[in-house]
Amino acid sequence: MYQNCYIYGINSVIHLSMIKITFPDKNVREYPQGTTAHEIAKSISEGLARNVYAAKVNGEVWDSSRPIQADATLQLLTWEDKEGKSTMWHSSAHLMAEALEIFYPGVKFGIGPPVENGFYYDIDLGGQTISSDDFKKIEDKMLELAKQGNAYTRKEISKKDAIDFFTQKGDEYKLDLIKDLEDGSITLYEQGNFVDLCRGPHIPNTSLIKAVKLTNIAGAYWRGDEKNKQLTRVYGITFPKKSQLDEYVLMLEEAKKRDHRKIGKEMEIFTFDDDVGPGLPLWLPNGAVLIEQLEKLAKDNERKAGYQRVRTPHIAKESMYLTSGHLPYYEDSMFPPMIFDGEKYYLKAMNCPHHHKIFKELNPSYKDLPVRLAEYGTCYRYEQSGELFGLMRVRALQMNDAHIYCTKEQFADEFRAVNEMYLKYFKIFNIEKYVMRFSTHAPEKLGKKYVDEPELWLETEDMVRKVLIESNIPYVEVPDEGAFYGPKIDVQVWSAIGREFTLATNQVDFAVPGRFGLTYRNAQNQLETPICIHRAPLGTHERFIGFLIEHFAGNFPIWLAPNQVSILPISEKFNDYAKKVLQSLINSDIRGLVDVRDEKIGKKIRDAEIKKVPYMLIIGEKESIESKVSVRKHGQGDLGSFTLPEFAKIIEDEINNALNVK
Amino acid sequence: MYQNCYIYGINSVIHLSMIKITFPDKNVREYPQGTTAHEIAKSISEGLARNVYAAKVNGEVWDSSRPIQADATLQLLTWEDKEGKSTMWHSSAHLMAEALEIFYPGVKFGIGPPVENGFYYDIDLGGQTISSDDFKKIEDKMLELAKQGNAYTRKEISKKDAIDFFTQKGDEYKLDLIKDLEDGSITLYEQGNFVDLCRGPHIPNTSLIKAVKLTNIAGAYWRGDEKNKQLTRVYGITFPKKSQLDEYVLMLEEAKKRDHRKIGKEMEIFTFDDDVGPGLPLWLPNGAVLIEQLEKLAKDNERKAGYQRVRTPHIAKESMYLTSGHLPYYEDSMFPPMIFDGEKYYLKAMNCPHHHKIFKELNPSYKDLPVRLAEYGTCYRYEQSGELFGLMRVRALQMNDAHIYCTKEQFADEFRAVNEMYLKYFKIFNIEKYVMRFSTHAPEKLGKKYVDEPELWLETEDMVRKVLIESNIPYVEVPDEGAFYGPKIDVQVWSAIGREFTLATNQVDFAVPGRFGLTYRNAQNQLETPICIHRAPLGTHERFIGFLIEHFAGNFPIWLAPNQVSILPISEKFNDYAKKVLQSLINSDIRGLVDVRDEKIGKKIRDAEIKKVPYMLIIGEKESIESKVSVRKHGQGDLGSFTLPEFAKIIEDEINNALNVK
Repeated sequence: MYQNCYIYGINSVIHLSMIKITFPDKNVREYPQGTTAHEIAKSISEGLARNVYAAKVNGEVWDSSRPIQADATLQLLTWEDKEGKSTMWHSSAHLMAEALEIFYPGVKFGIGPPVENGFYYDIDLGGQTISSDDFKKIEDKMLELAKQGNAYTRKEISKKDAIDFFTQKGDEYKLDLIKDLEDGSITLYEQGNFVDLCRGPHIPNTSLIKAVKLTNIAGAYWRGDEKNKQLTRVYGITFPKKSQLDEYVLMLEEAKKRDHRKIGKEMEIFTFDDDVGPGLPLWLPNGAVLIEQLEKLAKDNERKAGYQRVRTPHIAKESMYLTSGHLPYYEDSMFPPMIFDGEKYYLKAMNCPHHHKIFKELNPSYKDLPVRLAEYGTCYRYEQSGELFGLMRVRALQMNDAHIYCTKEQFADEFRAVNEMYLKYFKIFNIEKYVMRFSTHAPEKLGKKYVDEPELWLETEDMVRKVLIESNIPYVEVPDEGAFYGPKIDVQVWSAIGREFTLATNQVDFAVPGRFGLTYRNAQNQLETPICIHRAPLGTHERFIGFLIEHFAGNFPIWLAPNQVSILPISEKFNDYAKKVLQSLINSDIRGLVDVRDEKIGKKIRDAEIKKVPYMLIIGEKESIESKVSVRKHGQGDLGSFTLPEFAKIIEDEINNALNVK
Repeated sequence: MYQNCYIYGINSVIHLSMIKITFPDKNVREYPQGTTAHEIAKSISEGLARNVYAAKVNGEVWDSSRPIQADATLQLLTWEDKEGKSTMWHSSAHLMAEALEIFYPGVKFGIGPPVENGFYYDIDLGGQTISSDDFKKIEDKMLELAKQGNAYTRKEISKKDAIDFFTQKGDEYKLDLIKDLEDGSITLYEQGNFVDLCRGPHIPNTSLIKAVKLTNIAGAYWRGDEKNKQLTRVYGITFPKKSQLDEYVLMLEEAKKRDHRKIGKEMEIFTFDDDVGPGLPLWLPNGAVLIEQLEKLAKDNERKAGYQRVRTPHIAKESMYLTSGHLPYYEDSMFPPMIFDGEKYYLKAMNCPHHHKIFKELNPSYKDLPVRLAEYGTCYRYEQSGELFGLMRVRALQMNDAHIYCTKEQFADEFRAVNEMYLKYFKIFNIEKYVMRFSTHAPEKLGKKYVDEPELWLETEDMVRKVLIESNIPYVEVPDEGAFYGPKIDVQVWSAIGREFTLATNQVDFAVPGRFGLTYRNAQNQLETPICIHRAPLGTHERFIGFLIEHFAGNFPIWLAPNQVSILPISEKFNDYAKKVLQSLINSDIRGLVDVRDEKIGKKIRDAEIKKVPYMLIIGEKESIESKVSVRKHGQGDLGSFTLPEFAKIIEDEINNALNVK
């Protein structure tokens, strides 16, 4: 139906009044009123236009074929954009539905959204069945339909017509959804022979889908309510190139081998217990070493960067969170209160309010700024138990938290220093691919979605942008996704096998320091409110260690490895000397253990290799007489014979090399 | 009335059958049935008899004049014993009451118990008033009455007679107390002209009270209920020697100067905030340094002693605490639950259940024992808000916790190693006076008050006793005060000004590991339950730092001092060099700050001395040209001029000296 719109487009009706289109790089170009994003892309290059899936118009994602009628900001969305991918996968769900209707006549459809990696559709097959054996034929059908290049067309429809349509089709789930919709806001999307109730947006046509893989089948209650009927949830993923699917399949296989839950169990890093509760990890000794070493790294870097550490309790009164504004807005993500002494006490879901209180107590003057308060505070957030996932989605979060309170003049330097800390960490952890997602405000929503400080917004956004560019940090700018109180940056990193993780969020905060009455005395002896930077470069121990397990496949660098050394006596006769060696290494701050089992040395070496211990020290007659150790390196083999001080120096040098990056 | 008993005593009726008296050192002596503790003391020495205030007979404190009719364990109580002091102070409350009746005819009496330092009596003066101006005359009267050497005599009385007596006297509070007493169990005590409803026990006579000081007046509701009448609470303390009172008064004055709340505020160590809640300290940067340094010390020592660190969440499900037995018995000391997902979750009041779960997950064999799991876990305990006191009584406790799981054979070595750690810490912190209070079981209460493992009790108590004696550790043995699941040791230390603190409790635990189903596979491949030692030599950060502030009067040793160095530029011109010096020191792991104020150098030095910063570095023209610093030591003055590496070495050596004690 949008074909009709084209007559108002750029080629046909050049006498229409012109509108101003502002691009993400702040460039402004004029186009005739009613121009579509697709046409704008085409005006830039044919190649670009072919790859545009949708467009963000004034912060809202639209079909690329929808005419733009007034001045607007515009971001063209491709496969490289999060929303581009989502649009592609949303359209793929419709394509799968079309294929399913062919194989399963009468199938009824629930909802079919895009998810983090792909999409799903909840379906009611009536008496029919589906299994992974059917995936191949459905995938083939989807590819066949995709090749037809059918357009996804949008149609506004009255509530009555929508009800008539789905009553006739016999789809009670869609009718249930329509019930909650307002007349005048209902749209259908049609591609090929499939029509769906859908708000959109969608990709222009099915030919953009070049590779298809169905990945899983699961049960799911209608509307997530176990009182309702259980539907069948079919998961899939699609790509614009066949090679991307192949890479994805390879990555999935590697990710399965590196699954942090699997390695976490094998290497005795963490566990969960029914009596403690879901989402509340118990960190075993090996996991606690990882935590202690990460904290050591963070504390060392923060100390040198002028941070001060603080310690705050894990609970606070309701009044604290009413002041911060977390209550009532964030209440669903907090644990329910404990009520005593006539007060409600909450487990903290974030450390900032406690830090604000400390800033207030310190009562600094401008000479004392910036004040940088750091704490590895454990926060508690309520996640639905169904959402919990290993270390990636937990209820207890040990956060590499700090809050920097500074003047406007100090902001750029402070923000730059935070970024430098990120870059240093990326080097230390061999994180080669990363991007910062820089979310800004929308001027028209000041005073509503955003705190009404137009100049501060522009000023800090400019400073942030400038620092990002100067520091050569890859970033994408996303308008209209800032926090209420300031611009924010989400840090995305890719593991060694190419999986994407969101590690941390940095936020600039103009508003909350004011709510807490935080001030400093400026050079003119007047009270001013500081700006606050919330930052957590290493994120939480939980998520970061989950990431590191996959990233290193458990082969942690020497400074981080739970056991750096495995001491292998060749027979029980040398166990005592081995234990002395261990104690001597412990005194040199080296972590290790003795394999006292009654096993052959070959077996001990093989097991230490499997356990990914960086160094093996083999101890027999010769070594115990000469007070030496024979050193083997994991994956490399024999290094020769050393005294203990010589060996300790090898480790020390390796650690210094790993941590002193430039 | 007990004078009558004497005719059954040792001197008069030697034909009575003999009873066996077991002394704390396990010596047994025979005495005629009906002998009193006083007589037994006399049989040892006249001097001892004069100093015996009361006696512990089969674990119960008795008047020393009460006849013992059957075999019993006996501990003679003097001023040196906690219960000896309590008895003295309880008797002193009666003496004060006698004096008050003289000055305030018709005064009515509530309760008058001994407390940690002295005693109080709650009184109703009717229309009369009392103030600290009246203390002198009351003290003098008490001393006058004391000199009369009136005996405290016990009288059993029927409930009816008791009611008649206090009705006649017109004391409604005593009548209110009698209401709840059972007929047949009511006793009065009389000394001089004063008769009180009292269970006792008391000292033999008033002449033992040689020094008296009334210390305070406060209001207190009858029975602690604010709906009742407010009475006047008069506090006092007494001593067996005048010189002891003088020392006590001096110590109080010094303690006031060293009050951890006062110094804690001046040195910006901690604060409380209304929105966070009472008893929940916020640790400011200087306090966090103390915490980090204490943790570093503990972790270092624990690492070298073969401990493994773990991390556990601050909450757990109800089922965990039902298994451990903390619920319902300990419920009043726990925070109320948070209820979600149909479960009750509690803030942890102790770390042991979480550690037990980790032990279970590690599933060790006998070759892996002992397993020593350490964590600076923050626990939360509910204390009545009226009981909260600075850092000494809080609701959030960061505990130097560890649990050692070992075999019976390993127990003595493990317990010895724990004690050695204590002794090392005492040296590091210059704690010169300490005593371990060793609480054991009572054989007749096995299976009731104590877990029914008669041999394990005797065996471990013997091992503990032996280690204490071998290690030359001063200890007192207290029968019938062990924990349900094993013997325990409370560690008492005295601060530099002679105040006593209870720092930590060590417990041996036979029972709870079994409740959690903890086992290890022994050499015969059978499952056995390990013994668990609960230990926390540095107690909690809260109490220990409170103690250290008083102990050092804020003059912390260099390794612990929040700021080790204060850099003092002689004019603003040298602020930049001063900041470079600071950064260089920070890189050498030295903590400090720059005094950038626009003040004269003399003032800067004076202020640094007041702030108790161990070293001052003075920086002017000469220093900045020569790249040196002029060093002043707190309380000692000028040390000369040094390069930064030289100065860093001075600090490093001082720290090594302080921490590497033998």
